[in-house]
Amino acid sequence: MTAIAISEPGGPETLQPVERPVPQPGPGEVLIRVAAAGVNRPDVLQRMGFYPPPPGASDLPGLEVAGTIVAVGPGGDPEHLGQAVCALVAGGGYAEYCTAPAGSCLPVPQGFSMAEAAALPETIFTVWHNLFERAWVQEGDTVLVHGGTSGIGTTAIGLCGLFDIKVIVTCGSAAKCDAARALGADLAIDYSTEDYVEAVKAFTGGRGVDAVLDMVGGDYVPRNLACLAEDGRHVTIAFQRGAKAEIDISQLMRRRLTMTGSTLRARSADFKAALADEIHRTVWPRLSDGAWKPAMDRSFPLAEAGAAHARMQAGEHVGKIVLTV
Amino acid sequence: MTAIAISEPGGPETLQPVERPVPQPGPGEVLIRVAAAGVNRPDVLQRMGFYPPPPGASDLPGLEVAGTIVAVGPGGDPEHLGQAVCALVAGGGYAEYCTAPAGSCLPVPQGFSMAEAAALPETIFTVWHNLFERAWVQEGDTVLVHGGTSGIGTTAIGLCGLFDIKVIVTCGSAAKCDAARALGADLAIDYSTEDYVEAVKAFTGGRGVDAVLDMVGGDYVPRNLACLAEDGRHVTIAFQRGAKAEIDISQLMRRRLTMTGSTLRARSADFKAALADEIHRTVWPRLSDGAWKPAMDRSFPLAEAGAAHARMQAGEHVGKIVLTV
Repeated sequence: MTAIAISEPGGPETLQPVERPVPQPGPGEVLIRVAAAGVNRPDVLQRMGFYPPPPGASDLPGLEVAGTIVAVGPGGDPEHLGQAVCALVAGGGYAEYCTAPAGSCLPVPQGFSMAEAAALPETIFTVWHNLFERAWVQEGDTVLVHGGTSGIGTTAIGLCGLFDIKVIVTCGSAAKCDAARALGADLAIDYSTEDYVEAVKAFTGGRGVDAVLDMVGGDYVPRNLACLAEDGRHVTIAFQRGAKAEIDISQLMRRRLTMTGSTLRARSADFKAALADEIHRTVWPRLSDGAWKPAMDRSFPLAEAGAAHARMQAGEHVGKIVLTV
Repeated sequence: MTAIAISEPGGPETLQPVERPVPQPGPGEVLIRVAAAGVNRPDVLQRMGFYPPPPGASDLPGLEVAGTIVAVGPGGDPEHLGQAVCALVAGGGYAEYCTAPAGSCLPVPQGFSMAEAAALPETIFTVWHNLFERAWVQEGDTVLVHGGTSGIGTTAIGLCGLFDIKVIVTCGSAAKCDAARALGADLAIDYSTEDYVEAVKAFTGGRGVDAVLDMVGGDYVPRNLACLAEDGRHVTIAFQRGAKAEIDISQLMRRRLTMTGSTLRARSADFKAALADEIHRTVWPRLSDGAWKPAMDRSFPLAEAGAAHARMQAGEHVGKIVLTV
């Protein structure tokens, strides 16, 4: 099969087509003939050499795919064969074929293209687990999400809309703020011209937000905490401005704030299967109702994965970038 | 009545007997004729001017009492009259009479003296809420608590013993470590001679603890986080070494740590009543069984509150200091 490998740590040009044997599904796994693969920021970090695959995972990049199940592992259920699914994978998505744990597969929602379905798993699993489970947001809450036009940001806007949660986002330009508002953000703050802490306070009447989903880190962390209402939750999923943060622990006490975070990729197959099951029960029915589709930026042919990465790094995209096979 | 007031912010000598009118219980409150009042570190901070009473609370120090209910507020249940109770109060405990929300009162456990009962509410409410509720520790967990011979530390040792939780404490001397072990600590680390992070790692076989109850803050915070196992919880209840802490948020992500904290005094009467009710159902039956009594350091007559504070500040006490009326 053709796959995209990282020839050496470096720029987008290091993503090169290679010939690889079709992977064999192990016990509990299925083999997917890939129709489309999502591109995510961790893929860029992996390409640069900063985010090595976890033990046992493919060395090929790619954390989510959509396609058709064409084989099942030993003892697997043959009824899976021929099913159109999207799946969260620990690597190997940039390829014509990819194995996935059966428990990490979800049906392609009714009315979704393969490209749209490939854009779902990584960001939905991440946003659902971190914002809905770890930060336990619920109907009536208000949340702050940075990077409002990113894959995570646009998915957070969508999921919050589905569950009656107000969402405030930050973006780096007026045009991106417009795009985020068009996708349903209740407030979009241009961080290049506005102090987001002040803007959040003004929008919430001084109360603050119930949760912050943060992928910025560094000096944003104390500013995020200042945005939180009493009993507010702060969840870290990345730290683009650095892992060191100086916080005021008296605020954690006095306002009963909670800070946590997680990474998805290294979690067990059992955990991911339980998470997929919950998402299937909670989010999937609303997708099949047509209540939300992911914001799609652009599709690139698999062979042009480097161009897809260059677009992500340029930061001009709005929504998800996918590769099509 | 005679009460102990803070004549001005300052040293223990500023605690002086004064004559005050007996307070009147409002709706939902009871009046307690105080037999004994617990002394707690927040009282010392309040005396120094660092911890003002919350709005509506007495300006007199004292956060817990034991005694007899001698009056009920408008609409209150006369059946309460004559009951021997201990109570969490938002202030005013250093006095012959003290009002308390009826929901914050718990019966004096069978076999407990008034002095022992007065030593219960503040530390049990604090440890139960922070360690058992906010850090959700459960049977089989291992926890780290600083200040193993303090009121909080000795209560944490006791409650962990009642619920089959292993408890590691730190203390400032070999003698205090001996005292903590005698009270039931599974490991007592002398922080003046040992690196507690290394000692915790060694004791737990490298795994770390499930929760840290911290009242130290400052540079202890990153060291505490280093003591936590995956999915570990860090709860701040004071910050004797400062409120500023530099943390590595990548650890929160990679090991899914949670940081939170709380203060008890400013919480609503409804919250305290719900907490009292849970403690009544979970902890109280075990106290009446005689499974644990609080470690008692010394009793002082009410008029010698200043000497009690001096003893607490000297840091030589093991367990609770109480005032008797």
